Amino acid sequence: MKTEFQFLDSLRTKYSLPHIGDDCAVLPKDSKTDLLLTADLLIEDIDFRLAWSTPEQLGHKALAVSLSDIAAMGGKAVWAMLSLGVPENIWNTDFIDRFYNGWFELARKYNVELVGGDISRSPDKMVIDSIVGGEAGKGKAILRSTAKPGDAIFVSGFLGGAAAGLRLLESGLQSPKNRDNLDRNLLLKQLQPLPQLDHANILCLHGIASSMIDISDGLSSDLSHICKQSGVGARLEAEMIPIDANISLDIPSTERFELALNGGEDFELLFTVEKKNISLLDSLGVTRIGEVTANTGIIELMRDGKAEILEPKGYVHF
Amino acid sequence: MKTEFQFLDSLRTKYSLPHIGDDCAVLPKDSKTDLLLTADLLIEDIDFRLAWSTPEQLGHKALAVSLSDIAAMGGKAVWAMLSLGVPENIWNTDFIDRFYNGWFELARKYNVELVGGDISRSPDKMVIDSIVGGEAGKGKAILRSTAKPGDAIFVSGFLGGAAAGLRLLESGLQSPKNRDNLDRNLLLKQLQPLPQLDHANILCLHGIASSMIDISDGLSSDLSHICKQSGVGARLEAEMIPIDANISLDIPSTERFELALNGGEDFELLFTVEKKNISLLDSLGVTRIGEVTANTGIIELMRDGKAEILEPKGYVHF
Repeated sequence: MKTEFQFLDSLRTKYSLPHIGDDCAVLPKDSKTDLLLTADLLIEDIDFRLAWSTPEQLGHKALAVSLSDIAAMGGKAVWAMLSLGVPENIWNTDFIDRFYNGWFELARKYNVELVGGDISRSPDKMVIDSIVGGEAGKGKAILRSTAKPGDAIFVSGFLGGAAAGLRLLESGLQSPKNRDNLDRNLLLKQLQPLPQLDHANILCLHGIASSMIDISDGLSSDLSHICKQSGVGARLEAEMIPIDANISLDIPSTERFELALNGGEDFELLFTVEKKNISLLDSLGVTRIGEVTANTGIIELMRDGKAEILEPKGYVHF
Repeated sequence: MKTEFQFLDSLRTKYSLPHIGDDCAVLPKDSKTDLLLTADLLIEDIDFRLAWSTPEQLGHKALAVSLSDIAAMGGKAVWAMLSLGVPENIWNTDFIDRFYNGWFELARKYNVELVGGDISRSPDKMVIDSIVGGEAGKGKAILRSTAKPGDAIFVSGFLGGAAAGLRLLESGLQSPKNRDNLDRNLLLKQLQPLPQLDHANILCLHGIASSMIDISDGLSSDLSHICKQSGVGARLEAEMIPIDANISLDIPSTERFELALNGGEDFELLFTVEKKNISLLDSLGVTRIGEVTANTGIIELMRDGKAEILEPKGYVHF
């Protein structure tokens, strides 16, 4: 069976689609500005569960995942559209009002205006398509395809928290009392993620990042996208990968590492930086985790002084 | 229970959303051009049935409904995004390839480039969100809100065919042999509608239409949108409404009229024209069906010399 990535590759080739393949499409807007476009489809029981989120959190997350795509280009979000498929039993409650409350709370923070969308009835599952339009300076959007061998690899924030939060939800939330706050942080990371637009703007404004992607599928998978599209390889230093400190130490260290490496939905930024620009990052909370290599398509993981080949893992729909 | 129109009204008011309420959002692009944006969500067993369409027809229709929104603004379509939720049993067939074949066949006709979208697995129903971006000259997009009392009301093409096609599909397609061609036309009108972009461009280029909408919900309902947003009323001449001649004459004339008046999805253009500009329409296949009045919010239907008040009817999701 073909994966969705293989399918998109075949579509690009068959129909010659030059604007598909990054976090956002980049189209000309005016003489100084490019238009950024992204869409994220979230379907109940595949991408979210109603029992796990408040309606406000779901509205927040629907917008956040698309804002994260704008962040991954170093852009600024400007407008949004929202298409909702709503089962009748949900329509007849205050769910949708509360969903929009959560959506608008995040939208206000980044001055994003809702300009359109659609509403349809849905037979049983709720459906959300989140579309966001943004802007970047002409030619300034940070692509996946422009990493160069020798560049250092950085990540913002900490990894694995969203996947650990998902694991808590799947296990039924039986957390020991003394972990209440830590577990709440993990749940928030999963249910109410924060797009890294502020970090992204600094990286773009100062021309620091040579390539960038957001971590939605998982570090190993998203790094493989950069490698593939830049025609490069990468070497990761295992002990440098910043594992979310909220994850319980009762979880074996190999599993915690696995969550950080392959768990998706952290919506942190993964980016590469020319060596000469590394000092510009001093004031940002970002971590150097490896280096871009000329070993096209190969990601090596350095652990205890030994190199192993890393196979990208992470969430795929098909 | 609130209708989707009431809900959108409340959303507009609560959050001050100036760009919502027309067929497309109109946003500034550059000094000469406005950006048009529209999204249409189609959900299996609500908006379409897989058993009724070929995959190619479904791909065509997904794009056509959004192109029709661009047409309704007098715009030109430029790019599109497509978000698909696909059940696994469909993913494992050639359905999606054939769906894109149909989509691209129409896209090529109007030079529309696919620039993005998303693919998600769906538990059971197929989901399509069609997003199209277009352009209109600065301030030239034709709105719903600019009809004036005294303007003549026109419609392109013929009405009721798509609804009659739907009725055939719902009845199981038992059509008498001698109606094969006529019924095929009705089915195509329902399953493979043609957006009226060429008509729309002429109306816009020459500044002919004073307001416009596409007929997606039904003539009575879409005319009521123009009336509401322009703060006007309307008088329709029953015998002037162009009923699709493919509809069987075995259907009583009152029912045929009902299909033309309230049946949706014809994707023809409904527009108003200042009296002095009417002669500019001579070479277009459009029909004058009534007049805009100062009788705010009231649509009168003139039939056999008598006026009756017309209540807008048509498809609503809620």
